Amino acid sequence: MDKIKHKILVLSGKGGVGKSTVSSQLALYLSHIGYKVGLLDVDLCGPSIPKMMGLESKDVHKSTKGWVPVYTDESQKLGVISIQFLLGDKDTPVIWRGPKKNSMIKQFIDDVNWGEIDFLIIDTPPGTSDEHISVTEELLKHNPDGAILVTTPQAVSISDVKKEISFCNAMKLPIIGIIENMSGYVCPHCSECTNIFSSEGGKLLAEQCNIKFLGKLPIDPNLSICSERGINYFTEYPNSSTLASLKSFVDNFNFKSSTTTTATN
Amino acid sequence: MDKIKHKILVLSGKGGVGKSTVSSQLALYLSHIGYKVGLLDVDLCGPSIPKMMGLESKDVHKSTKGWVPVYTDESQKLGVISIQFLLGDKDTPVIWRGPKKNSMIKQFIDDVNWGEIDFLIIDTPPGTSDEHISVTEELLKHNPDGAILVTTPQAVSISDVKKEISFCNAMKLPIIGIIENMSGYVCPHCSECTNIFSSEGGKLLAEQCNIKFLGKLPIDPNLSICSERGINYFTEYPNSSTLASLKSFVDNFNFKSSTTTTATN
Repeated sequence: MDKIKHKILVLSGKGGVGKSTVSSQLALYLSHIGYKVGLLDVDLCGPSIPKMMGLESKDVHKSTKGWVPVYTDESQKLGVISIQFLLGDKDTPVIWRGPKKNSMIKQFIDDVNWGEIDFLIIDTPPGTSDEHISVTEELLKHNPDGAILVTTPQAVSISDVKKEISFCNAMKLPIIGIIENMSGYVCPHCSECTNIFSSEGGKLLAEQCNIKFLGKLPIDPNLSICSERGINYFTEYPNSSTLASLKSFVDNFNFKSSTTTTATN
Repeated sequence: MDKIKHKILVLSGKGGVGKSTVSSQLALYLSHIGYKVGLLDVDLCGPSIPKMMGLESKDVHKSTKGWVPVYTDESQKLGVISIQFLLGDKDTPVIWRGPKKNSMIKQFIDDVNWGEIDFLIIDTPPGTSDEHISVTEELLKHNPDGAILVTTPQAVSISDVKKEISFCNAMKLPIIGIIENMSGYVCPHCSECTNIFSSEGGKLLAEQCNIKFLGKLPIDPNLSICSERGINYFTEYPNSSTLASLKSFVDNFNFKSSTTTTATN
């Protein structure tokens, strides 16, 4: 874990705000621009990272140095760990109470051989319970960059992000910034962008709480289709506004000062 | 609890599929057509029912017979219990590990004085962990009707519902049926209904798993606006397709045979 330069936790109070989409797109983008990246899915009861990355049927292997991440391709620039890789039958639910989840998360933090990588992006389940307490406690031993909070413009989701901010403060986990997901929907019929839920919520919340607003990620049906089919969205749509948004998020980050020298461009 | 005729658990593998929207709309609709209804929110870390019902600032009171639900109006046809009513500061996160959540849920099941009501709708958080195990174990002592599974047409969500089906089977909780939420979005600019995620997923899943398909609930921006503002959607939009959908869900239910005689129409 200490060989990893940047450790980022992706949080949101509510489910369904696109936390896993943000985590996986961020990981894909960072590896796309040349970094070595790990993506850890600590959503034990509803993991969606493997499906989104097109790795659903993969299994994880154990070496003498620990679990070996599942890599997206031969370049081994992006490795993924999820409980789904450990399940025989992928439709089996993980009906676990807290203590069992906590020991699994401790193993994910301590026993995965990520190698020397630039970024570890950690995707979490919704809420502020066992998974979040455990992963944050473990992570705080290893000097993490902090948390990215994901929200939608809808007020119910925003009140949950306020709780997530209080959670970070209570746990003494730094907050990197807020990403507003699903900000507007471009109708493929009339190309008019409608704010299907509301608008500007994430930005207002960021200002109100004195937290950096990292930017907006619009709903793009192509992103959802690529996610479902496990296709690399950047290769398919090199000029997309999503790619531009991700570039702007990364430009907006205040990374901790350790240099990230392995990027090739 | 034994004075309640029908007990229904609303489940989904993923968050953000509109589980709380379905729960609250169902409760509102059942009380709208004359039943006495209780709505119990067991999402302890991200409760959204109070906000959706316009009851955000309310507090719960304790009588000699137990906790008194917060009623939506003077008719006392719809009572609500949520952890949010117990919190002093509504933005405080509930940073609880499993055991504390379990004892809270046991109190919600045993210590609330619902009175003689027709329906208890129980809204759950995403996943298959402590809250779900505890609430199901407690509920099974009181002969519940079973679970309604909520999904969106998106494949990632559907694979999570499969897990929820396995969860119900493992816990021996009957499944009432599947509701597909956010099925299509009517663009206010061109009125063309686009399946923003995918389509027909819930229906196919229901057929595949031999479970009743209760119907679809389209995205209606007015529903979201009413939810956020705590306005009664049925009074505002008496001819909406959402109201028609809810009527059709209820017509499609196979309720356990105990008669529900308090309905006035």
